[in-house]
Amino acid sequence: MKLLSTLTLTTSLLMASPLIKEAKDAGLKPIPSSQTELLKLIDNPNNPITNAKIELGKKLYFDPRLSKSEIISCNSCHNLAEGGDDGVEASIGNKWTQNPHHVNAPTVYNAVFNNIQFWDGRAKDLEEQAQGPIQAHPEMAATKEHVENVVNSMPEYVNEFHNAYGDDVKISFEKVTDTIGLFERILVTPSPYDDFLNGKENALTTEQKQGLKTFIKVGCASCHTGVGLGGEMNAFNVVATYKYMNVGDFKGDKNGMVRVPTLRNITQTAPYFHNGKIWNLIDAIKEMGRIQLGVKLSDKQTQEIKTFLKALTGIKPTLTLPMLPASTDKTPKPVN
Amino acid sequence: MKLLSTLTLTTSLLMASPLIKEAKDAGLKPIPSSQTELLKLIDNPNNPITNAKIELGKKLYFDPRLSKSEIISCNSCHNLAEGGDDGVEASIGNKWTQNPHHVNAPTVYNAVFNNIQFWDGRAKDLEEQAQGPIQAHPEMAATKEHVENVVNSMPEYVNEFHNAYGDDVKISFEKVTDTIGLFERILVTPSPYDDFLNGKENALTTEQKQGLKTFIKVGCASCHTGVGLGGEMNAFNVVATYKYMNVGDFKGDKNGMVRVPTLRNITQTAPYFHNGKIWNLIDAIKEMGRIQLGVKLSDKQTQEIKTFLKALTGIKPTLTLPMLPASTDKTPKPVN
Repeated sequence: MKLLSTLTLTTSLLMASPLIKEAKDAGLKPIPSSQTELLKLIDNPNNPITNAKIELGKKLYFDPRLSKSEIISCNSCHNLAEGGDDGVEASIGNKWTQNPHHVNAPTVYNAVFNNIQFWDGRAKDLEEQAQGPIQAHPEMAATKEHVENVVNSMPEYVNEFHNAYGDDVKISFEKVTDTIGLFERILVTPSPYDDFLNGKENALTTEQKQGLKTFIKVGCASCHTGVGLGGEMNAFNVVATYKYMNVGDFKGDKNGMVRVPTLRNITQTAPYFHNGKIWNLIDAIKEMGRIQLGVKLSDKQTQEIKTFLKALTGIKPTLTLPMLPASTDKTPKPVN
Repeated sequence: MKLLSTLTLTTSLLMASPLIKEAKDAGLKPIPSSQTELLKLIDNPNNPITNAKIELGKKLYFDPRLSKSEIISCNSCHNLAEGGDDGVEASIGNKWTQNPHHVNAPTVYNAVFNNIQFWDGRAKDLEEQAQGPIQAHPEMAATKEHVENVVNSMPEYVNEFHNAYGDDVKISFEKVTDTIGLFERILVTPSPYDDFLNGKENALTTEQKQGLKTFIKVGCASCHTGVGLGGEMNAFNVVATYKYMNVGDFKGDKNGMVRVPTLRNITQTAPYFHNGKIWNLIDAIKEMGRIQLGVKLSDKQTQEIKTFLKALTGIKPTLTLPMLPASTDKTPKPVN
């Protein structure tokens, strides 16, 4: 029996689907199934993940008092109960201001796999990214001082910072955003696709495998690659111009490059594109083929790709809703 | 040994704190320690609590797509990560509209113990209350039709309604709000005060017991009574006029009566009063003494009462953040 099972295992390895090899050769990588490997991939060497930091980061992520109005939190636009985003074309923030560039909020799930953050790649990591929306006037509209005063006004927060970083920690704005960014690093969602790439042949259906083949064959994987199926800066409007390019004034970074969005949980993160003008996944796939690859994808190909993309829907971490410390007399008041 | 422990028990019962009797005589009642008794108290006889309904109600409570903009949920103003409210004087809703009457959002925690809902008591229960903010223009601003179309557009929601209510359920606006209201019924927070009233002598400190005595003696318990320490309609401005009566146009119900707010978790639900104009608990206690009881509470009395009120901070139910169903092509689009 023992010999037989060893033999079966060996055979299984030898017979590993050529599609797995093809996918890996195309640059696609799974979320590691080993927790140790995963931790290596997502951890911040300058601020290693610990339970105390993650629990604290979760509270800060959900705390609307970090905003000027004290009613907008990170979770308002990157809603963890939804696809890690807000489901609108362009986010609405302080004083109901819509993002002035009409830019769509990217999902925070799996954002750790992005090599660079924001659509124009202006932040190097999640920690740096977290500093942006908190201070941006159309978003949370807070000053660094407001954030520091809020957090330092509550002994429960101060104690948690001490537990997480030691008693001599300075609870600065950057310490707060570093902790939020660290929490965001654990928001990864392993999917059937990962099981497949990790060697579990039957994790994808025949139709999903066909979709993956088409995805690679037509060239999607040339940009939507790596663990995140996206996450690097790349040229946009390669062979034709995006049909809603006139909505908003976003033109990418100084070289016109745009951060490729992850495709993980894509069925949960409509609307699509940097300005959220395309609501339907079929339309999004066809538009991508037209402007980036210069191909008119057939209905069949498009459907196949969509079928594959559904296999990227992952299992989200189970999060207990945090209980935030109560404000004190020292907590700054909200400003409307 | 057996005889001795029986004797001890009997003695303990005989010696039960006169304060427990005094509190009960004053109309104060604990959250029952028995789950069966508690369920009797919070259940809706017309729509009995089940796990399936509660899980569904939680999703709907957290789902911003029920609002016109699709970015405001019940939880936006009744934040379960905070004190079950929003921590601002008057809630800010659709299009950043502040409540036009400058009325403060009451906590949803323990709201099941209110005999009547809203500050003016215009809804008989949580289910009826839930219909209000979803449709109110300064709040979620949705039509009944929008809510029905959103929920019916997602097969996952439809299946959950079938599981909760049977396959022939009509997923109407009222069914949605009934389910949200039912979820809200479980949001109760037993506290050391309840342990004390349930017979656990040492659950309150000597200082807290002294505070409770003062609370009863000066007359607070005449309105802040029952399980909720509040929750019934009562006269307001009894012997003097609330000093911020000029802020907002709220004047109570047609007889000038106001729903007495619960004092449970009061340290987490600033600002206070129907228009949220008092941020400090000490100020709130003194103002109540002045306008309702016609007494100038001393600093000592006020501090004693505050010390007691802290014992009303309860343990909130542990809630796993729900994972909401993904929108479909049929889901109505947000309207900004």
